[in-house]
Amino acid sequence: MRLPVHNFNAGPTVLPKAVLQKVQAELMDYLGTGMSIMEMSHRSTVFDDLMVKVDGDLRRLLEIPQNYKTLFLQGGASLQFSMVPMNLLPLDGSADYIVNGVWGEKAVKEAQKVGSVHLVASTKRQNFDRVPERDLMSFDSHAGYVHFTSNETIQGVQWPMEPDVPAEIPLICDMSSDILSRPIDVSKYGLIYAGAQKNAGPAGVTMVIIREDLLGSVPNDLATMLDYRLQAEKKSLINTPPSFAIYVLGLVLGWLLDLGGLPAISRLNQQKAILLYDVIDTSEGFYRGHAQSDSRSLMNVTFRLETTELEESFAKEALAQGMVGLKGHRSVGGLRASIYNACPLESVETLATFMKDFQGKYA
Amino acid sequence: MRLPVHNFNAGPTVLPKAVLQKVQAELMDYLGTGMSIMEMSHRSTVFDDLMVKVDGDLRRLLEIPQNYKTLFLQGGASLQFSMVPMNLLPLDGSADYIVNGVWGEKAVKEAQKVGSVHLVASTKRQNFDRVPERDLMSFDSHAGYVHFTSNETIQGVQWPMEPDVPAEIPLICDMSSDILSRPIDVSKYGLIYAGAQKNAGPAGVTMVIIREDLLGSVPNDLATMLDYRLQAEKKSLINTPPSFAIYVLGLVLGWLLDLGGLPAISRLNQQKAILLYDVIDTSEGFYRGHAQSDSRSLMNVTFRLETTELEESFAKEALAQGMVGLKGHRSVGGLRASIYNACPLESVETLATFMKDFQGKYA
Repeated sequence: MRLPVHNFNAGPTVLPKAVLQKVQAELMDYLGTGMSIMEMSHRSTVFDDLMVKVDGDLRRLLEIPQNYKTLFLQGGASLQFSMVPMNLLPLDGSADYIVNGVWGEKAVKEAQKVGSVHLVASTKRQNFDRVPERDLMSFDSHAGYVHFTSNETIQGVQWPMEPDVPAEIPLICDMSSDILSRPIDVSKYGLIYAGAQKNAGPAGVTMVIIREDLLGSVPNDLATMLDYRLQAEKKSLINTPPSFAIYVLGLVLGWLLDLGGLPAISRLNQQKAILLYDVIDTSEGFYRGHAQSDSRSLMNVTFRLETTELEESFAKEALAQGMVGLKGHRSVGGLRASIYNACPLESVETLATFMKDFQGKYA
Repeated sequence: MRLPVHNFNAGPTVLPKAVLQKVQAELMDYLGTGMSIMEMSHRSTVFDDLMVKVDGDLRRLLEIPQNYKTLFLQGGASLQFSMVPMNLLPLDGSADYIVNGVWGEKAVKEAQKVGSVHLVASTKRQNFDRVPERDLMSFDSHAGYVHFTSNETIQGVQWPMEPDVPAEIPLICDMSSDILSRPIDVSKYGLIYAGAQKNAGPAGVTMVIIREDLLGSVPNDLATMLDYRLQAEKKSLINTPPSFAIYVLGLVLGWLLDLGGLPAISRLNQQKAILLYDVIDTSEGFYRGHAQSDSRSLMNVTFRLETTELEESFAKEALAQGMVGLKGHRSVGGLRASIYNACPLESVETLATFMKDFQGKYA
């Protein structure tokens, strides 16, 4: 028999087994309709009910206040890099960006095509091994918004909590890789966006949570599909939504609620991350964590070994034992274990044991 | 036992049963990887292979020449309404639009946000019951492109073949609702785009076929995700693609190839449409087809009855016999049977019989 797979892909990645089983079970017949969810009209009451449930469950999990709209869009966070400034960067003003990794840099690049960007702080010179210190951040008090990336998947750097920014400036966050992994206070944010394919579902649907008052400043001539205000008015149904991806997202939200919501998954995520960081910290330098301790990601554990040859052996031997996705991002190399919500504790324990054994063999 | 469902939804709509069975069978384990296709990294060789196969099968079916790029994007045709002019409408020029239905009107509206639009012809005054006659179309010989909609789902109006436009102007087509339903000569087009959810797969992926030379005129400052040139360079993998939707699209393409390709499906589609139009034409006015004979859609058969009450009875009684999706679009009313590629002949025969019985009962 084949070994079980332990999936450490950075996204798309492992989904809860119970979710996949449900998808499989009702694939040919969704709720007794005799049709697959993929075959349902997005204007049907069955699909309406699904949208209401997904929206309600997302609101319940994140405790989203009533004065926020939730949108289910397409194009991933990368399209949001552009939609955020198109909708919210004032023509005569600028926006503040905090950069602590490659995704934040990409967000800046897209915003600069739309308008003026002020770089609050960047840890690029530290090779993105941390989030910026509060003292090093200088905000523009007239900024349209402040943008940051809560978790950088490539570097494995995460904000322990949202940055301390001036209260009057809307805070905007690319939360693609840690949304729903821990409780957050949504009321601190003006807008949150996230692709689903790491903690929340399959690729193909992007969540946007936006404070209603911000919709008032959306310009009038935007492309309809790129206009937050129109998307909110039409409840994300301007055109056919990515219905299957939304359906699976809904199942993952239900799974999270069944587990006990974000406090419960947050505890599990901490437990998993500690297992791996402990191996790194007690390895006497055999494993070299990329991120500084206070900026370590609970989602993506990034580390290096002394040589790239050794790193290759690590990935290869791990793969032979059923552990996939451990190579670092092609742009930075090294090793990376992505341990999002649906990555089972058992997979992380297997990896931790492997890491110790590997050190014993090669140290 | 419940009646079998006959799905006449306008999209999303019925998928081939064999495709759904395959999705179900390999949902937990794609090609022996031990993972669902939804859990696979889009940078893996398994997914690379899938993209190559989908691309190759689309090229084979449509006989796409080598000097065309194929893209697999998100956002549906509605986002293409904006991307086409953003990429291809010259700053100092204009674009020609032919309008024969609601979707064409929407395309114009989005293009006008980007630049100058010249309306070649519109059949709005005929309540969009036909495509424009050649004599009534006046082209701008300096137009950046000519845009048309090959099939209007709401009105049930289809071009029998592409309009006769000046050879030097690139022809652009929204082919969302009849792509892959019949053979076409791709070399006549500059660009073709289509959401998958009618003839080709589930919602969530949009196909774009673009002649390479047009990529040269894409402006430099477009949002990365909206830039055809960058999407082509990165083979649609700038960010995480909608991998599951692409996978199902691939299965539908395989199903079409197994059937005998576009000549075979085209014969079947004609056979299905004739069944329904024959009932309409021999009903002595009980059923009133919306489209003029020479503009009738083989995909969406639209018709009215004498009163809206009778139309409601029709939809209700049909539903009771397992036929779903027969109400016309909410914007125009009436009745509509969408009979795309995967709608079985048996479903259309069932509907034709029902129509005759219904007439017998109420005429």
